[in-house]
Amino acid sequence: MNSEVPYKVKLTIEYDGTYYCGWQRQKSEVPSVQLKIEEYLSKLFGVKITAIAAGRTDAGVHALGQVVHFTPPRDIKRYNLPHAGASLLPRDISIRSAEMVGPDFHAQHMAKSKTYIYRIWNQPTASATRARQSLWIRKPLNAKRLNETAALLVGTHDFESFRSVGTDVNTTVRTINWAKWVRSDEYLEFHINGSGFLKQMVRNIVGTLLQIERNGDSPQRVSEILKARNRQVAGPTVAPQGLYLAEVFYPAELDFKSRPL
Amino acid sequence: MNSEVPYKVKLTIEYDGTYYCGWQRQKSEVPSVQLKIEEYLSKLFGVKITAIAAGRTDAGVHALGQVVHFTPPRDIKRYNLPHAGASLLPRDISIRSAEMVGPDFHAQHMAKSKTYIYRIWNQPTASATRARQSLWIRKPLNAKRLNETAALLVGTHDFESFRSVGTDVNTTVRTINWAKWVRSDEYLEFHINGSGFLKQMVRNIVGTLLQIERNGDSPQRVSEILKARNRQVAGPTVAPQGLYLAEVFYPAELDFKSRPL
Repeated sequence: MNSEVPYKVKLTIEYDGTYYCGWQRQKSEVPSVQLKIEEYLSKLFGVKITAIAAGRTDAGVHALGQVVHFTPPRDIKRYNLPHAGASLLPRDISIRSAEMVGPDFHAQHMAKSKTYIYRIWNQPTASATRARQSLWIRKPLNAKRLNETAALLVGTHDFESFRSVGTDVNTTVRTINWAKWVRSDEYLEFHINGSGFLKQMVRNIVGTLLQIERNGDSPQRVSEILKARNRQVAGPTVAPQGLYLAEVFYPAELDFKSRPL
Repeated sequence: MNSEVPYKVKLTIEYDGTYYCGWQRQKSEVPSVQLKIEEYLSKLFGVKITAIAAGRTDAGVHALGQVVHFTPPRDIKRYNLPHAGASLLPRDISIRSAEMVGPDFHAQHMAKSKTYIYRIWNQPTASATRARQSLWIRKPLNAKRLNETAALLVGTHDFESFRSVGTDVNTTVRTINWAKWVRSDEYLEFHINGSGFLKQMVRNIVGTLLQIERNGDSPQRVSEILKARNRQVAGPTVAPQGLYLAEVFYPAELDFKSRPL
């Protein structure tokens, strides 16, 4: 029926994950971002639409640039999806852009890498207006030492020590392209880009890097933890409200095929 | 009974006003920031405490630097009020600093001036993670023209045209020390400092400046509106979620008397 539409639609979406159980639709009635996006698209087009994301995000985790695709039920060139979303979606989910992409596009399978950001409010006192968007750590953190440790994660490693239980995977080997701590105007931020991430892997990495810094351990401690392949030896999982799925990257050829919708 | 404590306490507090009816305690059960602060202090000291703020903020309005004073029931030098607040207050209210000040200090009566900030997310698409903290305006705004108009508000004027009904005042004359539009990393912001503000005056000023810019009227239009002394001729009241009480200023002598608590 839909075979006549020769394109898929790629959405880049932003959300404040505070009140959601994560991206993925659940069997129960708990609100998920996927449910809200699918309800929005289904309402707009009058038929049931399924939305596929680049990756799941956990409960309370935010996104600045989650990527989602769906197959349009008919030619939808006349729709302004970000604009329609501004009136039909809850205010804590927004569509930042919409593009037509080839019919073979798949938000999850074609993703080459993803960047996550973890925000820390590293000040002596808590900040009420930033509490939903960051983790508060009172004690001053040494970004230089954190960076020395983070550098040892770059490359292809078995990340079993940084994987929370809950999802079956074929392999726990992943490639980290880069990882660095940067000071923005407001926050101390951890930025990490990799080919793929295991369950809660970024939050487990951040918890471990912070623990190494706090204990005054040498950066090499993180290599020992990698080698151990044991979640017990790594640090705690930090809270979800500091984490953002920032950007998803696709093969460069795609940029020539996509066009704004 | 409390006459033996030779100081008052000055708190600088921050809050996300989204879920509050404003600063002021209401007769009904609706949550106010004042209620939460008083509950916190009363719980900490075991006696009923009254907290007085520099100024009321309306429902949904935020504060980065609201100032509050209270009379301590006994010598409380051993308390770390920001730290205790981090565990006893809701996460959307935080104490940024606490100081001992003279017994004659009064957060409202001694305030010399206040700075408010109004944040606008001036981008083509909405931003889910900024929706609670700013007003979204799609159409690009001309900061230069907005500034030309804002400059005409500086000085002592009758601001009757910018006053919402609801609170009796002796005079509607107020002095604006400076007013300017600035681009931060993320937002187009209106910053205004004045000796005092009438009910919803900042939100009415912002609504009027935006209307003049949108209509392409000359900056002098704002002077005509001031002269009219009529709320009907000014622009609409913009939404509360963009407004922040940023800073309250006191006579310089106070800085020599206060000390961190």
